[in-house]
Amino acid sequence: MEPDGYCVPVGCYGMPGSYTHQAMNEYFAGKRIEETFFDQFEDVIQAVAERRVHYGVVPIENSSTGGISEVYDLIRRYDCAIVGEKCIKIEHHLLALPDTQLDDVRIVYSHPQGFSQCRQFFKEHRNWVREPYFSTSKSAERVQKEGRNDAAAVANGMAASMYGLKILVPDICTNKHNYTRFFVVSAAMEEQADVDKITLVLSTKHEPGALYHVLGHFFYVGMNMTHLESRPMEGHPFDYFFHIDLTGSLHDPGIVKTLDDLAKTCIYFKILGNYKADQEGAEDAIRTHREDAEA
Amino acid sequence: MEPDGYCVPVGCYGMPGSYTHQAMNEYFAGKRIEETFFDQFEDVIQAVAERRVHYGVVPIENSSTGGISEVYDLIRRYDCAIVGEKCIKIEHHLLALPDTQLDDVRIVYSHPQGFSQCRQFFKEHRNWVREPYFSTSKSAERVQKEGRNDAAAVANGMAASMYGLKILVPDICTNKHNYTRFFVVSAAMEEQADVDKITLVLSTKHEPGALYHVLGHFFYVGMNMTHLESRPMEGHPFDYFFHIDLTGSLHDPGIVKTLDDLAKTCIYFKILGNYKADQEGAEDAIRTHREDAEA
Repeated sequence: MEPDGYCVPVGCYGMPGSYTHQAMNEYFAGKRIEETFFDQFEDVIQAVAERRVHYGVVPIENSSTGGISEVYDLIRRYDCAIVGEKCIKIEHHLLALPDTQLDDVRIVYSHPQGFSQCRQFFKEHRNWVREPYFSTSKSAERVQKEGRNDAAAVANGMAASMYGLKILVPDICTNKHNYTRFFVVSAAMEEQADVDKITLVLSTKHEPGALYHVLGHFFYVGMNMTHLESRPMEGHPFDYFFHIDLTGSLHDPGIVKTLDDLAKTCIYFKILGNYKADQEGAEDAIRTHREDAEA
Repeated sequence: MEPDGYCVPVGCYGMPGSYTHQAMNEYFAGKRIEETFFDQFEDVIQAVAERRVHYGVVPIENSSTGGISEVYDLIRRYDCAIVGEKCIKIEHHLLALPDTQLDDVRIVYSHPQGFSQCRQFFKEHRNWVREPYFSTSKSAERVQKEGRNDAAAVANGMAASMYGLKILVPDICTNKHNYTRFFVVSAAMEEQADVDKITLVLSTKHEPGALYHVLGHFFYVGMNMTHLESRPMEGHPFDYFFHIDLTGSLHDPGIVKTLDDLAKTCIYFKILGNYKADQEGAEDAIRTHREDAEA
């Protein structure tokens, strides 16, 4: 981290009021940052690689839709490093102008995914017109701009405060445990003392047992794998990259040795980052689950 | 498959003219089908489970964005079976009214992902206004409805013919190897002779080496794993399901025995389907890659 007083330029994927924006604000809470928004993953990572911004924040994995392979590929191709992570609970609300009542609502704007994630709620309001729009935060802005009392939007709490809307019905998601994970990316690895999570990408020969032997390396030193995904290589539809998250620190010589040995057996091997796991986000997810189980 | 003359009711995710619609048409080429469109994954799978349609077609995996975990979960929860797969090359074109010339274009409609996937092309046309819209096929419909000669849409060839548009610039995707894989789902497994691919979902204890031991079962009988993904269980953010594709047939007693043995070591184990791999789509993907390498 930079000295106090320095305003860190940070690039954010998506639009003001998005979940990525929320992740950025929570990760950099208490720091002075200068925000720039980019509408494509590649623009964020490119700005980081060219050092136009110091950090970039991008979504990497959603608990209901899966990993975002393109983001892994960009971090790898632009030779950037993952220096942090943040987990955010996806919490959609029904937003409207301050003097709108629930009975006034006739039309609702949202991204199609917003409607889909609040499926149960909309079953109880079948007479409302659902108008798909290209983002949840832009849907909130549209309600504000149009000034209509019969319109509402499905978006997050941040969009509500940005566009002067009130939360008419809170937390209308069907799945109360929908989390999105974000990476904080920098042009190079950073010296951090308390790192405990490693993300790497590797490729093996496409033959039976190749991944089995890879996992053997982790197994024999007791490293825990928290995420694994096989993805086709771009332009090589039947060759695979594996994206792997492991618990561990590169300050541990045993782990460094294990990864070195493993690298020798791979066609491709690259450590994308060693960073501190978002324990708070993880505990929040567990707590929500418990409360729900007890309810 | 049903006898000739019978019109098979098939449910399709998304809108007419979408890539899923294209996958459905190619998979059922030569058969008489009655198409119903659903705007949510769950509606398709539910219609299949309740036998309101005989088959459902849903996207499952995109070579640039990764697997669609929600679809695996729905197939599992509604106890449906995967009976086929289809791979479709994502090929966006610039579409316009028949008498529009490239120089006339001032504004382009598409889903934000359409713009993002044609990034390089739009770098050469920086003066065009890019207006995000909620689907690529609806963008094509909008060009037709508005009848504007200064407007174009980014969408596929099927949308072009559906909405009477011409292909102004063909295949403008940056990545020429972007494939999406689709599952054909039925309420129960089907008797098919020439099946060669198995999809299963399993859960192990969250402890080091658990997946290593799972893969050992496949390794020792020489089964090849073509896809692997770990996904958090909904409502249990730190427990994992593994979605696994393997080559093989349940007509082979050795494979059945291996899977039986494996099932005994898992907390959860379910075979989602045994079906014929889309070899044609796969070969097409390889051919495209070769041609590109030789160009």
